[in-house]
Amino acid sequence: MIIKKESKDNLNENPDLAEERNKTTFDPFKLGNFFWQGQLLRRKEILSYVEAQGAELCPRVPEVFMSRMEQMEDVARLSVAMANHAEKVIDVFKPEEQFYFNSLICGFNGSPFHLHLIMAVPAMINSCDDDQATEWLPKLLNRELIATYAQTEMGHGTNLRALETTATYDPSTEQFILNTPTITATKWWPGALGKSVNYAVVIAQLWTNGKCYGPHPFWVQLRDLETHKSLPGITLGDIGPKLGTPSNDNGFLRFENYRIPRRHMLMKHAKVLPSGEYVPPLHAKVGYTSMMYVRSMMIYGHAIYLAQAATIAIRYSCIRRQGEIKPGAGEVKVLDYKTQQYRLLPVLAHVYAIAFTGLYINQLYHTVIGDINAGDVSLLADLHSLGSGLKALTSWQITRGVEQCRLACGGHGYSDASGLPSIYTMVAGSLTYEGENIVMLLQTARSLMKVAAECSCVTDNIEKIKENEGKMKNPITGYIFRKPTGSSLINENSNVLDYLAAFEHNSRRLILSAFEYIQQQKKLGRSAEEAWNEAGIHLCHASKAHTQTFMARIFSETIPKIEDIAVRHVMEDILWLYLTYELVHSSVGLLEEGFLSSHQMSIIRKKLFTCLDRIRPNSVALVDSFDFTDRELRSVLGRKDGQVYENLLEWAKKSPLNEHDVRVLPFHEKYLGSAMREARKKREEMSKL
Amino acid sequence: MIIKKESKDNLNENPDLAEERNKTTFDPFKLGNFFWQGQLLRRKEILSYVEAQGAELCPRVPEVFMSRMEQMEDVARLSVAMANHAEKVIDVFKPEEQFYFNSLICGFNGSPFHLHLIMAVPAMINSCDDDQATEWLPKLLNRELIATYAQTEMGHGTNLRALETTATYDPSTEQFILNTPTITATKWWPGALGKSVNYAVVIAQLWTNGKCYGPHPFWVQLRDLETHKSLPGITLGDIGPKLGTPSNDNGFLRFENYRIPRRHMLMKHAKVLPSGEYVPPLHAKVGYTSMMYVRSMMIYGHAIYLAQAATIAIRYSCIRRQGEIKPGAGEVKVLDYKTQQYRLLPVLAHVYAIAFTGLYINQLYHTVIGDINAGDVSLLADLHSLGSGLKALTSWQITRGVEQCRLACGGHGYSDASGLPSIYTMVAGSLTYEGENIVMLLQTARSLMKVAAECSCVTDNIEKIKENEGKMKNPITGYIFRKPTGSSLINENSNVLDYLAAFEHNSRRLILSAFEYIQQQKKLGRSAEEAWNEAGIHLCHASKAHTQTFMARIFSETIPKIEDIAVRHVMEDILWLYLTYELVHSSVGLLEEGFLSSHQMSIIRKKLFTCLDRIRPNSVALVDSFDFTDRELRSVLGRKDGQVYENLLEWAKKSPLNEHDVRVLPFHEKYLGSAMREARKKREEMSKL
Repeated sequence: MIIKKESKDNLNENPDLAEERNKTTFDPFKLGNFFWQGQLLRRKEILSYVEAQGAELCPRVPEVFMSRMEQMEDVARLSVAMANHAEKVIDVFKPEEQFYFNSLICGFNGSPFHLHLIMAVPAMINSCDDDQATEWLPKLLNRELIATYAQTEMGHGTNLRALETTATYDPSTEQFILNTPTITATKWWPGALGKSVNYAVVIAQLWTNGKCYGPHPFWVQLRDLETHKSLPGITLGDIGPKLGTPSNDNGFLRFENYRIPRRHMLMKHAKVLPSGEYVPPLHAKVGYTSMMYVRSMMIYGHAIYLAQAATIAIRYSCIRRQGEIKPGAGEVKVLDYKTQQYRLLPVLAHVYAIAFTGLYINQLYHTVIGDINAGDVSLLADLHSLGSGLKALTSWQITRGVEQCRLACGGHGYSDASGLPSIYTMVAGSLTYEGENIVMLLQTARSLMKVAAECSCVTDNIEKIKENEGKMKNPITGYIFRKPTGSSLINENSNVLDYLAAFEHNSRRLILSAFEYIQQQKKLGRSAEEAWNEAGIHLCHASKAHTQTFMARIFSETIPKIEDIAVRHVMEDILWLYLTYELVHSSVGLLEEGFLSSHQMSIIRKKLFTCLDRIRPNSVALVDSFDFTDRELRSVLGRKDGQVYENLLEWAKKSPLNEHDVRVLPFHEKYLGSAMREARKKREEMSKL
Repeated sequence: MIIKKESKDNLNENPDLAEERNKTTFDPFKLGNFFWQGQLLRRKEILSYVEAQGAELCPRVPEVFMSRMEQMEDVARLSVAMANHAEKVIDVFKPEEQFYFNSLICGFNGSPFHLHLIMAVPAMINSCDDDQATEWLPKLLNRELIATYAQTEMGHGTNLRALETTATYDPSTEQFILNTPTITATKWWPGALGKSVNYAVVIAQLWTNGKCYGPHPFWVQLRDLETHKSLPGITLGDIGPKLGTPSNDNGFLRFENYRIPRRHMLMKHAKVLPSGEYVPPLHAKVGYTSMMYVRSMMIYGHAIYLAQAATIAIRYSCIRRQGEIKPGAGEVKVLDYKTQQYRLLPVLAHVYAIAFTGLYINQLYHTVIGDINAGDVSLLADLHSLGSGLKALTSWQITRGVEQCRLACGGHGYSDASGLPSIYTMVAGSLTYEGENIVMLLQTARSLMKVAAECSCVTDNIEKIKENEGKMKNPITGYIFRKPTGSSLINENSNVLDYLAAFEHNSRRLILSAFEYIQQQKKLGRSAEEAWNEAGIHLCHASKAHTQTFMARIFSETIPKIEDIAVRHVMEDILWLYLTYELVHSSVGLLEEGFLSSHQMSIIRKKLFTCLDRIRPNSVALVDSFDFTDRELRSVLGRKDGQVYENLLEWAKKSPLNEHDVRVLPFHEKYLGSAMREARKKREEMSKL
């Protein structure tokens, strides 16, 4: 029934896409509903509401046609309109509904409320004690205060301990005095800080009674609520244009003896008493839960961005024709080329692997927060370690994936008409923000080396062995304790387990050999820190492999949960593509060690190619099942109806440069036109002589 | 002496950079002069001239602070000024001086003259017969006519045979009639076509006497020379914004029964006589020499862009401090991290490999053109094959390299203050323009498969063997005919030859196995074309390896030509880094086959790490030797004096968003400010009730 409705929407469907959709072996609605966790109809409801509001919730013109200032104006308009409608249609406490609603209206280039919702409000929820929450949260949720999260400084990113901004407690007035002692201490990058927000959660080094207790969060008013002017003692502004997200006014912020009341330190965990006495938190890393929340949300978000790019590139690859395969039979759809399938279908596999992992880590986050509130911090380190590695690996995967999608669209991928440049320039930031990726991998490695230290004494004594048996049960690191086999069991009939064993072998090998390398370096007389630095590249490889192993396992465990047989079958193809593709691209060490043979490599590669063949007919249906509307994709190439070329010309005609006759444009007659005319006259005069 | 002068320029030098410069083991001027082929002093002369002109040759404000329209206006102003000064300071017939002069004044985001100089003029030189050259070239060089090269169509890129634009000869009027028969036939992408040029070299399907002779070049007036309005029968405009190069008005163009005289067909090679009789060219691919010229120029250009990115990232990595290696010793320069060295120093090695290869291919191009003019087309196919593979491989290397440089700068790499986003968004286009990379690799593969077919019959008969001995001498493909050895000779004391042998082995293996794979597919009943498609991924791997082998050889052969011993020593380190890094990243097949052992891999990796250690102290001097000025780099992070942080704040303050009080900005009070105030009042009224 739903399939019929879709085709009614697509009366004007490009026959090349219709042909693809007719080949489908499963019901895209069912897969979509699985992907969106049963919320597909809910999404359609939200969409209908938004579409019914017409121009009020639409950008004035496509964002890319506007200057930065125009984009900021339009997104401010849309954000306020969005806020006014929100409660009428979405459950504002469900992040997935917020995210969808936001992306339908504001796109993903950032709205003034984005950081407010995704960072400032969660940080306040996690850091305010009860009285503070009662006082401030209603105003934040009401959006009369709009806040950002100000942690990063110009000279200090992921090394929080080195932050320079100070909050010094003055017991005589019961105030903290905020200061920016150097240029490098300037707060730098917080989203919407430049012009939009009036408050911020500021992370500063807490000093009291002459002692520094490290970075802590403070709730700081930045601007006058009436005039929106910055308050005395505060200097702030926009940090200027960036690779992407033009409508985000990432800002800078400096304090000069700026005073805030003692109770503006956020006191859920650590406290400073009126006397200046410091009361430490339950667990040192409890203060980092806001960062962990954002990272856990980011991973699923990554999958969605990559799914959008894949939708655009796969649809367009079934419309674009180039070159012949059978002479005389006409140009073929570019997705019929093996090279194009090899470029795009693994991207699709990554979407699912990242999405399923994102859902897992999200649940883990909520478990951990629940535990912390109940006084149990035992899972916190695991979450921190896993979240760091996943943030790094998935942001690389999506950045590379989006770029592959762009390139798969040939020249048109470079045009903003494809929508892909905006996705790329936005996701490219995720390699660095919320923790630079190499630092992230090294954080994961830190915990892996602790595990390796435990492993390496496996044979020491009976007690140790028993302890290790317990550790084997840990769902994240247990495999590291298992005894390695000499060679892989992979053959033509292997099931998923033989493949997972190969990932685990690779990861275990890299973890233990990085550990060994560090020991060797120490034996050469290097300090622990120097040895760690020397082993940096080994450690990154180990963390990547460990994270990859985790993702492969979560993906494998998710597929059997799909009830519909036809959907499960196609998803099994995707899983196998994922496993074979990832293994081929991580096989160096396994070959070097003799764990995989040349024959086994042939089997894996052959299986990979078979997967491409099997997935090819379902490709368009697979991306259709993500259920993105043209409104969200903002792409002429990715249009659901496939009417690409006519609309490409229409889109180009709207380019602001085409609005006026060329003689009216400021640059032409004044410079080029007159220069050409003068050159001609000069030559003509010369030739007369 | 020169070193002293440099330090006088740098009175305000950041001590962290000074420390680096003091560690240098060679004279950067000598390396720079080698890199710029003896033209380093000449460059400094040109720079002095440009700097002496002051504001006339400077952008009004940094480009990234301007809207697209403002950028176009400013670059038009600069282009005309540049043209007026050109003959006073540079030799306009030397492309390297043109390129440098252009990059000093207009940056690299494109000027209206860029395509004119790099494509239209060379295309005219290569395609006009003598009379045509006499008539049009003076006007082109005089810039009273500004032209572009219009080949790509909306629906047709690298498959030239499928172009749809037609030029039909009408013998009754001795005219060609140009038509755009479909939407997909619309010319799309030519640079500066949208608003700036008034002429174009148009590639169209030539029809005469009822027969189509394939794509040929025509010289077409597009706009009225007085009014600059498009002529009747012509529709053109800007194609809209893109990932990068905002100041380039890439355009679209449609013809409707637009007539041009017969002699506007460019007739150096093929001709149409007044009767309509077609006279074919000497060699079918002679018409492609313009494309070959651009590709041969692109490769060296790629090296320069990558060198700029490397300069920025390496200087900044010696200023940025983060984390401690020795506890208590303070934060270290990030370039002291092994992970950072592994990220950046191989990029530097790629710069040289690409530059030296670019110079070689440039010379080869001029040789080939000379030969063609003398009636010899024997090297044309070699140039075409090599140029295609190099275009693909080097554009990937620089795109990945620039992105690594951006990421190595952490968050600030994402800011336009780093200059890296502009470089990235520009070079990212090179993966597609002038031939989509996968198609380029498959073109190289086409010629490699011909070689493989000759190889595979090596043992057939004595004559064949003799023939193959001759073929072994071909400097580009000769190695493929040599007999493979069973295992690599690489050991601790290996010289370059053992490494080159490994590259050759890898490439030969991939070429022959792709050939085998095609034969297998044919035996399974597939047509030649289907088998070719099935083997697409194998063919791409083979082409990449072949091109990589060529680059490694050219790089190796270049180093001994360096006369200065200290410079040669540091460049040997760079060469070894290149060879080991590339081999580690291409080792899968060599391991799988048993050509390389695990022990040999350890040797190669160890040598790679040793190179990082050896190059680290010379890093800043190496990038200094490229001799880029701050004017060219347009980067706060890459400043020669290293005064990064103060200038980052100054740069941000100039962001247009900071020019006005926030209340005056169009978006704030109108939307956000009033929404916040209303929300507050509503809550306050509610609480009164």
